[in-house]
Amino acid sequence: MLTADLDGGTFRLRQATRSDLPAMVRLLADDALGAGREAAEDMAPYERGFDAIDADPAHLLIVGELVPHGDESGPVVATFQLSFLPGISRQGAWRSQLEGVRVAAALRGQGLGKLMVEWAIQESRRRGCGLMQLTTHKSRSAAHRFYRQLGFEASHIGMKLAL
Amino acid sequence: MLTADLDGGTFRLRQATRSDLPAMVRLLADDALGAGREAAEDMAPYERGFDAIDADPAHLLIVGELVPHGDESGPVVATFQLSFLPGISRQGAWRSQLEGVRVAAALRGQGLGKLMVEWAIQESRRRGCGLMQLTTHKSRSAAHRFYRQLGFEASHIGMKLAL
Repeated sequence: MLTADLDGGTFRLRQATRSDLPAMVRLLADDALGAGREAAEDMAPYERGFDAIDADPAHLLIVGELVPHGDESGPVVATFQLSFLPGISRQGAWRSQLEGVRVAAALRGQGLGKLMVEWAIQESRRRGCGLMQLTTHKSRSAAHRFYRQLGFEASHIGMKLAL
Repeated sequence: MLTADLDGGTFRLRQATRSDLPAMVRLLADDALGAGREAAEDMAPYERGFDAIDADPAHLLIVGELVPHGDESGPVVATFQLSFLPGISRQGAWRSQLEGVRVAAALRGQGLGKLMVEWAIQESRRRGCGLMQLTTHKSRSAAHRFYRQLGFEASHIGMKLAL
């Protein structure tokens, strides 16, 4: 899907498998907001979420592996979900939506997030989407800068209701 | 799905059909932002959007009809889309997402939007969603108040990229 050379090896995007879930949940939990929302003691809810995503081609669950030079695979160090949603508004435009973008703390600042989002933009264009969207918590000011630099406009308020 | 008595008749929610599309596009276009985004001269893109939604049970396209007393049907005066999205974050929570919520200008302020969103909240709970979400443009201050009164928290920034 995408590979990039780093000091420690090759960064490679691929579709997530069920066995990646523990590493993905660690990435989601290693975060100021995620720490209070995730619960890795019980993997069953995550497995159900994975199976629902895996069964539906409208949702891609991606991981980034850091593959040491000479090896065939390596630890999962990044993840995101990309969904493709049909709609009526904007002349029936399809929109893609990013959720749960995470890069391992030790590897931030090396451009891996940028590579991932640029791949997601290309994939959204390839699938004919007219719009790409995401929400980020108001407290994530570094994320706002990051997405603005990639061309996203902070035009909307993201509202959430816990059910 | 939901009915409510109004002065002029009965307000009734039902799933949209392809023949509702012209009325739905008029509702989307009769809006400060939508006016510049919609193009009802060519219905083909809207029909493709409708067919994609109609083919996938993860997306509900709903219209509100105003049925005069004694009649069986009436004009479409409101619309919204409700989507159900699987995920890994928040312990594998499903989330529902509202898009394109519109009420005809002549009928605003009578609580129809509230009825629609309350129905959407109930349907999201019934389907086991842990979170409901939407974005509204920063300029829609009346919409922000409306959703806050329904319990939504304006916790996020909604970022968009035209592709």
